[in-house]
Amino acid sequence: METKQTDIKLKTPIRCIVKLGGAAITCKNEFEKINEANLITVSSQLREAMMFGSSSGSVLEMDWSKRPGMAESLVKVDDYKEQLVLDFSSFVVIHGAGSFGHFQASTSGVHRGGLNQPLVKAGFVATRISVTSLNLEIVRALAREGIPSVAMSPFSCGWSTRERNIASADVSAVVEALDSGFVPVLHGDAVLDEALGCTILSGDVIISHLAAHLKPQFVVFLTDVFGVYDRPPAEPNAVLLREIAVREDGSWSVVNPTLEDSDKQVEISVASHDTTGGMVTKISEAAMIAKHGIDVYIVKAATEHSLTALSGKLRDKIPDDWLGTVIRHVS
Amino acid sequence: METKQTDIKLKTPIRCIVKLGGAAITCKNEFEKINEANLITVSSQLREAMMFGSSSGSVLEMDWSKRPGMAESLVKVDDYKEQLVLDFSSFVVIHGAGSFGHFQASTSGVHRGGLNQPLVKAGFVATRISVTSLNLEIVRALAREGIPSVAMSPFSCGWSTRERNIASADVSAVVEALDSGFVPVLHGDAVLDEALGCTILSGDVIISHLAAHLKPQFVVFLTDVFGVYDRPPAEPNAVLLREIAVREDGSWSVVNPTLEDSDKQVEISVASHDTTGGMVTKISEAAMIAKHGIDVYIVKAATEHSLTALSGKLRDKIPDDWLGTVIRHVS
Repeated sequence: METKQTDIKLKTPIRCIVKLGGAAITCKNEFEKINEANLITVSSQLREAMMFGSSSGSVLEMDWSKRPGMAESLVKVDDYKEQLVLDFSSFVVIHGAGSFGHFQASTSGVHRGGLNQPLVKAGFVATRISVTSLNLEIVRALAREGIPSVAMSPFSCGWSTRERNIASADVSAVVEALDSGFVPVLHGDAVLDEALGCTILSGDVIISHLAAHLKPQFVVFLTDVFGVYDRPPAEPNAVLLREIAVREDGSWSVVNPTLEDSDKQVEISVASHDTTGGMVTKISEAAMIAKHGIDVYIVKAATEHSLTALSGKLRDKIPDDWLGTVIRHVS
Repeated sequence: METKQTDIKLKTPIRCIVKLGGAAITCKNEFEKINEANLITVSSQLREAMMFGSSSGSVLEMDWSKRPGMAESLVKVDDYKEQLVLDFSSFVVIHGAGSFGHFQASTSGVHRGGLNQPLVKAGFVATRISVTSLNLEIVRALAREGIPSVAMSPFSCGWSTRERNIASADVSAVVEALDSGFVPVLHGDAVLDEALGCTILSGDVIISHLAAHLKPQFVVFLTDVFGVYDRPPAEPNAVLLREIAVREDGSWSVVNPTLEDSDKQVEISVASHDTTGGMVTKISEAAMIAKHGIDVYIVKAATEHSLTALSGKLRDKIPDDWLGTVIRHVS
């Protein structure tokens, strides 16, 4: 992985990188439909988590644009003048595509490259239109909660891949936005690929890259199930894996629940043949982050459990009634 | 002006940089309202200008997202498979804000900087939301005409200023998009400023910067009047300045119409005290571009005259019945 930056100097350490899973913020089975209720709750929880320690309750609205059913913006300038500067802890938000972008990308095969084919080129443009329109709505939802969110599209940032691996992804613009007190909002995107012409850069790859370079205190994946299970969560007897320990070499094992029979561990590693980006892929990617000493929490969005994870409380102690998966380094 | 790139290597020379003036594509007096009719005509004329020499008539729709009143995307994949690769000449599109962004920026004073003030920080976020939502709609309008348009927001590109002058504006991402056959769509944006904290980077400054680095064959400003006049166009007896000659040192004079009395030239230079970004400012900025040997055409959007300008025909000969202002270098 060749990147320009060698040492990242953040004015204040970054607290958290959070992934808003596509399944959590969009309606999976409805084309380009946002899960408004979830997005509002997620935005509100993010605000609460970012303002930890501050008791200011009033929300400074930062989306002054027209909204459906509202003819004019209703900003009261005086509200801002009386406000003290709010101290937000540094967060970066990355979101998936859900029911945005997937149709355009899969129909055209953008991930396979081949920009000389009209279908691929059109699909590239169409995919970016779809994911950036979702990005705009997420930035607006966060801004309505008073979070100083700014859109940073990986393609616009000049990020590119080579054979689908990150080739160039200068994080300096993200760092400068953070240092100026903004919350960068990135997303899975169609990007140029030096070998293939183009491909899809997934939100999960972006998180791994940013985590390795920005070294946040913890990473939270907000998803539509309670965490990682030992089999598809819809199956009977699926067991939530509560804690996974990652060793120096990146290997990992489930430490809670203690798996009574050793076959269970085998079963999980067999599942690694699952190429759909299932459980084992997810754990392995999270393990690569945890290896750096960064706690990873996988939790259901818009629940009390996600608020606990986002607020960073799990770093000290995992409450018995907390539902989710913790993936952390053990030395 | 410190910029990273020293020599820009474009695979194919860039043909045109076009500015879609805010007044031409939005309804000036209605908050965040696009001038749909003009935008459709402008997009269609851009397509025609980009495809010069090609006789292919069918439009390959590249916006596959939902639209108001349409439940589903109606893309026919087979249409794309039968299509030959289209050869577009290289264009870069930059648009102004018009009735988007201005309210947010002026209410908060983003251009003056001061991100430690909550009003300015909120205004920065609000301005970006407004201008990027306009940008998305322009990218979509172009994509519907089969133009492979990609949004590239200056802030996301990491562009920044120092005391409102461009400090860092690496054009490599724009060049790579062009080399891959895309049409980058940039816009006036709120950006970070090394001295002030933040400011507004105008579309006109972006054009000057890109023109100097990308050396297009010509630059077109699409506006809401027929060109540059010797006084506000609404005034009686306002005369359209048809041709302005720019000398090596950047100084300029009106060569058509020949101004009978020499007082006219004086009158124009007196008007330079006009600080509202009026006529003389516009001519002086265009002269800085023309100095590089790049023709500049200022023309009314969505007219036969704009199509003539965009197609590059004015480089050979300016037809007698053409309405607009040509600003070009004379040696």
